[in-house]
Amino acid sequence: MMKKVLVLGAGQLARMMQLAGTPLNLDVKALDVSSNKVVHPITPEHIYGDLAAGIIHADVITAEFEHVAHDILDQCQQSGKLFPKSEAIKIGGDRRLEKALLESCNTANAKHYFVNSKEDFDKAISYLSLPIIFKTALEGYDGKGQWRLKVAADAEAIWQEMADFLNASTTTVKQGIVAEQMVPFDREISLVGVRRVNGDVAVYPLTENHHTNGILTVSVAAPINTKLQEQAGTVFKALSDKLNYVGVMAIEFFQVGNQLLVNEIAPRVHNSGHWTQQGADTCQFENHLRAICDLPLGSTALVRPTAMVNIIGEDTIPDEVLAIASVSVHWYNKGKRAGRKMGHINVSGEHELQLAQRLQSLADILCPKAFPDLNDFAKNYLDKQNK
Amino acid sequence: MMKKVLVLGAGQLARMMQLAGTPLNLDVKALDVSSNKVVHPITPEHIYGDLAAGIIHADVITAEFEHVAHDILDQCQQSGKLFPKSEAIKIGGDRRLEKALLESCNTANAKHYFVNSKEDFDKAISYLSLPIIFKTALEGYDGKGQWRLKVAADAEAIWQEMADFLNASTTTVKQGIVAEQMVPFDREISLVGVRRVNGDVAVYPLTENHHTNGILTVSVAAPINTKLQEQAGTVFKALSDKLNYVGVMAIEFFQVGNQLLVNEIAPRVHNSGHWTQQGADTCQFENHLRAICDLPLGSTALVRPTAMVNIIGEDTIPDEVLAIASVSVHWYNKGKRAGRKMGHINVSGEHELQLAQRLQSLADILCPKAFPDLNDFAKNYLDKQNK
Repeated sequence: MMKKVLVLGAGQLARMMQLAGTPLNLDVKALDVSSNKVVHPITPEHIYGDLAAGIIHADVITAEFEHVAHDILDQCQQSGKLFPKSEAIKIGGDRRLEKALLESCNTANAKHYFVNSKEDFDKAISYLSLPIIFKTALEGYDGKGQWRLKVAADAEAIWQEMADFLNASTTTVKQGIVAEQMVPFDREISLVGVRRVNGDVAVYPLTENHHTNGILTVSVAAPINTKLQEQAGTVFKALSDKLNYVGVMAIEFFQVGNQLLVNEIAPRVHNSGHWTQQGADTCQFENHLRAICDLPLGSTALVRPTAMVNIIGEDTIPDEVLAIASVSVHWYNKGKRAGRKMGHINVSGEHELQLAQRLQSLADILCPKAFPDLNDFAKNYLDKQNK
Repeated sequence: MMKKVLVLGAGQLARMMQLAGTPLNLDVKALDVSSNKVVHPITPEHIYGDLAAGIIHADVITAEFEHVAHDILDQCQQSGKLFPKSEAIKIGGDRRLEKALLESCNTANAKHYFVNSKEDFDKAISYLSLPIIFKTALEGYDGKGQWRLKVAADAEAIWQEMADFLNASTTTVKQGIVAEQMVPFDREISLVGVRRVNGDVAVYPLTENHHTNGILTVSVAAPINTKLQEQAGTVFKALSDKLNYVGVMAIEFFQVGNQLLVNEIAPRVHNSGHWTQQGADTCQFENHLRAICDLPLGSTALVRPTAMVNIIGEDTIPDEVLAIASVSVHWYNKGKRAGRKMGHINVSGEHELQLAQRLQSLADILCPKAFPDLNDFAKNYLDKQNK
């Protein structure tokens, strides 16, 4: 009765799917796309064969990242076992397709323009007003592949960099640039939701996200403005229905006043949903697996306010962290490398004040060099709760 | 930095330790004691060698059951890596040692008498009053190896059965019988607690247990009478200090009025602590690993009222179970066999009434033949909450 799941990608997301799926009697294996080997998501030793063997063995196939080579996605799609479908995964991996989807659903997002040439570039500058952010259409993540144009005088230099980048590009699909109006947003928030084959949808509470150098460092999930939650839920429903989506999808938003603008879509479990492991009724990894295995979705209710702190570029933290109540540490068993996501820490509280206090205790213990913005974040959050 | 843990025994408890330990970067392997092979606790494929190799590879060794052959325990003990120590594990596997421990700590327990001969048997009957329960000193679990003497007329027949049993016994340590006054208890409850090398102790909220044919079927953890909790905590502290215990230990009690009598001790993670996976701040499996790896203990606070329902002798349940909010299913990936613990279901609620309602929904879906007492339990529990 054990269902076999193959995850394209053998990183931390596949690992956490394996941990969440095992109790449900799901046998989760991973395809290391760089070596084309089916590996154990935890160890990660080679188990058997390659993609072709993996497809045959699996009952269901999914992906832990959107930048999977299209020929791999196409092979999986042909097997009829891939969830979400390759179109949805491809949309997450190409900002042009993403923008087209948003437009087709009349979903609010930053004003933008596609750039493939100097002519487009000049048009973009006159169509949008400065500042503008230019993002590569393909392969951008964690703030990589972005240029910010703040003053007109820098235009020529930035175009030259982008032109060199485009010329050097070796992607199978033609690389491009999406120019976006930089939005003076109040904060970045995201919605993680899940959709089943039959159209059932469940969304988690909105999460507030904080980035450092383009990488997510802290996410907080706590009871939130109902109207924003509804707005985000409506967007999720529209986009996921349009895609006939199956599985967990994350939507990143800019909040501008009371409006949410979609920043980007991730067709997979998402870093800003890691808090669900301790803070929600059913974690995002389990819900993704439930959806792709056509099992009933689990409740996405908030159990208690919870924050997630990414561990970046470090492979140890002081043991005392574990002495703080409601702290869970999740290591990914990856080799240490600067800027690499090595693990995360979930912290919960019965109420937000308690959560803020525990975050402050955490910030007091962790090395400020390794967690540069955590102390400021915790201090501000605690101040806000004490008011 | 990854610590290697070897678990003696490759059943569901080792499996759940592996799942709880992986995020902490603990590498948990299991010794299948019947085949003397080190196996993966999940798959459970053979990984390498035997006990001797396992001892060399491991940083820390622990046990998932108390009936480990003494020569295995002794070998592990000699390595200096075994937690808890073999004496503590042996006490859990021999009711005579258990009773001696309770006496040495002046811990309340049922009046008892050791029986090795017809003479002892007759003395036990005059020392204790009927009804008496006779339990094998070794190898008894899940209600196996027990005789109940309710009327004097049955004494001769029961003795004959026990004498045959003792004569047929092939245990290395001499088998024996412990006669116990049957206690007219109000209910059975248990305490799961954890102790670290430095003497730190943390205990979970008391759990109310319900058995069917000697096997635990339902456990409920909810806010409870503070005095009982304190009483149980004091017993845990006394016994675990006496043993210089390291790891999780469970104590089963009979509640008689306001008094707790120790029924038995399990020197390991325990079925009545499975609810902690969803209902407590840190689950018993993680806390056991933290203790034996000398990491700070995690908070044992109740997050929300939670019940655990054992799945016995069945390898499927209806998918609709997963549609009930706050339900988590934990399968053990074991071959189907009548009476075998195959998995468990955790159910939580924000308050006890909600928990009771969800338990009733669960009972309505599950097959009454497979879960014989669940419906009655849920009905009574719901009635109690509605009052």
